[in-house]
Amino acid sequence: MSPSATSQEANGAVAQKAANGHQPAPLDASKLTYTLTTSPRDVPEFDAAVASSETICTDHMITATWKADGGWSAPELRPYGPLSLMPTASCLHYATECFEGLKVYRGFDGGLRMFRPDRNAARFRVSAARIALPDFDADEVVQLMTSLLSVDGAKWLPRERPGSFLYIRPTLIGTQPQLGVGAAREAMMYIIVNFMPRLDNPPGGMRLLTSPDDMVRAWVGGFGYAKLGANYGPSLVANSEARRLGYHQILWLYGPDLECTEAGASNFFVLWKTKDGRKELITAPLDDKLILDGVTRRSVLQLVRERLGDELVITERKYSIAEVLEASSEGRILEAFAAGTAFFISAVSQIHHRGKDINIPIGPDDQPAEITNKIKTWLADITYGRTQHEWGVVIPEKE
Amino acid sequence: MSPSATSQEANGAVAQKAANGHQPAPLDASKLTYTLTTSPRDVPEFDAAVASSETICTDHMITATWKADGGWSAPELRPYGPLSLMPTASCLHYATECFEGLKVYRGFDGGLRMFRPDRNAARFRVSAARIALPDFDADEVVQLMTSLLSVDGAKWLPRERPGSFLYIRPTLIGTQPQLGVGAAREAMMYIIVNFMPRLDNPPGGMRLLTSPDDMVRAWVGGFGYAKLGANYGPSLVANSEARRLGYHQILWLYGPDLECTEAGASNFFVLWKTKDGRKELITAPLDDKLILDGVTRRSVLQLVRERLGDELVITERKYSIAEVLEASSEGRILEAFAAGTAFFISAVSQIHHRGKDINIPIGPDDQPAEITNKIKTWLADITYGRTQHEWGVVIPEKE
Repeated sequence: MSPSATSQEANGAVAQKAANGHQPAPLDASKLTYTLTTSPRDVPEFDAAVASSETICTDHMITATWKADGGWSAPELRPYGPLSLMPTASCLHYATECFEGLKVYRGFDGGLRMFRPDRNAARFRVSAARIALPDFDADEVVQLMTSLLSVDGAKWLPRERPGSFLYIRPTLIGTQPQLGVGAAREAMMYIIVNFMPRLDNPPGGMRLLTSPDDMVRAWVGGFGYAKLGANYGPSLVANSEARRLGYHQILWLYGPDLECTEAGASNFFVLWKTKDGRKELITAPLDDKLILDGVTRRSVLQLVRERLGDELVITERKYSIAEVLEASSEGRILEAFAAGTAFFISAVSQIHHRGKDINIPIGPDDQPAEITNKIKTWLADITYGRTQHEWGVVIPEKE
Repeated sequence: MSPSATSQEANGAVAQKAANGHQPAPLDASKLTYTLTTSPRDVPEFDAAVASSETICTDHMITATWKADGGWSAPELRPYGPLSLMPTASCLHYATECFEGLKVYRGFDGGLRMFRPDRNAARFRVSAARIALPDFDADEVVQLMTSLLSVDGAKWLPRERPGSFLYIRPTLIGTQPQLGVGAAREAMMYIIVNFMPRLDNPPGGMRLLTSPDDMVRAWVGGFGYAKLGANYGPSLVANSEARRLGYHQILWLYGPDLECTEAGASNFFVLWKTKDGRKELITAPLDDKLILDGVTRRSVLQLVRERLGDELVITERKYSIAEVLEASSEGRILEAFAAGTAFFISAVSQIHHRGKDINIPIGPDDQPAEITNKIKTWLADITYGRTQHEWGVVIPEKE
């Protein structure tokens, strides 16, 4: 029931000509300006930081604004603090917003690393296009993240805390102060860095509740593949109900066959024996755009293909909860895990579906079982600099 | 890929006990405090106001904040101005936001009226529950809208401008500054009043383009029935493409049968002759929760049942674009219109579907055809005080 006053075109993935005939300015990390805080904060202990009901961010953030007419402003590194938005801002009414999430790791070799930031930046563009927000060069976003971490990394992820991490949240919001359902002609990108709890080892393993019949996370023709705010808020009611019942996350089912898609906001993998006795690692496919194209998901698939391709069949296809139930009843389920930035590689020990428990082996002492643990160790070794790998991108730090 | 640090329960439709054992405070319009602007603005001419790329609001707005522990704060009427939100605010990442839209009308009898504000307030609660935002008493929201209009109405909708209107936008956003996919434990409701263009009489009638195969607005198990931001932003790409091609709105189709659901962000009605020669007014049903339960839609159905029940069959059922095409080819389509707050009753003159045009009669001089015009006149007479009706709720004004 909301209008658009004017004819507004999608800002999507196509550069627009400004009204004055000039090309709008592209996002340009080389134009970054620096305004350092005069009120630097103390760095809290990790446990205290993640227990807070308010997310604790580092001293600085980066912002860049965009207008349909002029393009991108010079990005600014400035003290972390509140944003001023008009009550009519597009993002507050029409969910014109998308984000990314990746971690920065303090390595055991002293290095500061992001994990495949180019993949997150590329997906950020895909998300922006789906929600009619402006385009940008993905490399510029990687540069901006690097610049922010070059300033805040040494203090907030000190060398004395190897094996620790922070979370990087690039965000893009429609800020045009105009009601009316139309693509936002003003936007803001901002990048913040914050503490986030470790979520990969819940005691006893991760327990999943299958989604109820009347709650569907994403659908064909929708936007499940994009990291839009619109994918998350609507999942909260089911999510909260799962937690109330003692489960960690929802296992989202889809369609009349109840295909397994995502576990909470992570991708989901099952390792089972097929009926003919082969070991298979299975996960939902990307081709119908239902699930997020997870960076961790891609990395798991590639590493397992490279390193365990002789032992395992690796399959991306639709598979139903009925197949999982059948495999469970026949003792063929070997392992299962959620894979994503926040939950990293988190072993799943149970799925509850319509009154039935599917119990899945995990390792001793709440550790993942064999294959899950291998995958997790490979990835951790890359992120924490125990293995030198092109996916671990080192951030230059001032000494 | 985003976590929740803590176990958080849905705030949904159930009152929570605060940590201190007290019941959280309900939203209470009687506690409204007043801080009047010291910088009142001039009221622009209507045409100038709606031509602006920034929505022009009245001098004041109402805000009320909520915390899971304490409940609702005393609402404040205060000068219209920007909101301060932390970059980590829930609504900027997870689309924890919903809104309402209704108009306030300056009647030809001098009265200031809202149209069925109780219905909007009731739906506002439904939307809030779907996106895990806090509950409130709908009557309190009606009271708050009334209080705001009692202050700003006489100036911004002066008696010298009978037949004019403003738009009221109650909004509820999750403000908790915490990343992590969990229900927001802090929120803000705000109410603003603004200019909005007339959209009900596009020259030549409204022209609709059916949605492309790879774009679905809402789905069974989703949230199409609720007025969530998450329903609007994802529609913008298709919306912009329709406008680029010269159409006013998308006619959203659903499912393998390509059922007609909504026209843009309005409900959609077709008046046709059935194969056995009866006149039927048809619109999509509410029962699968795909479409918005429009206040205008309900009002149209009720008035037509009361006043034209002898001439027309009134039907709420699923109907496909194929049925519309067939009726068109057999010359059975009489009229069609979009119905909603923003577009009011807007005659549809054409639907384009996969290379075929469905042309629909409208009246002379771009006016709606017979039945559409009757409905539109009935509703306009109620809102502008030509007919006294319980749906037109008069706002008390200080003389």
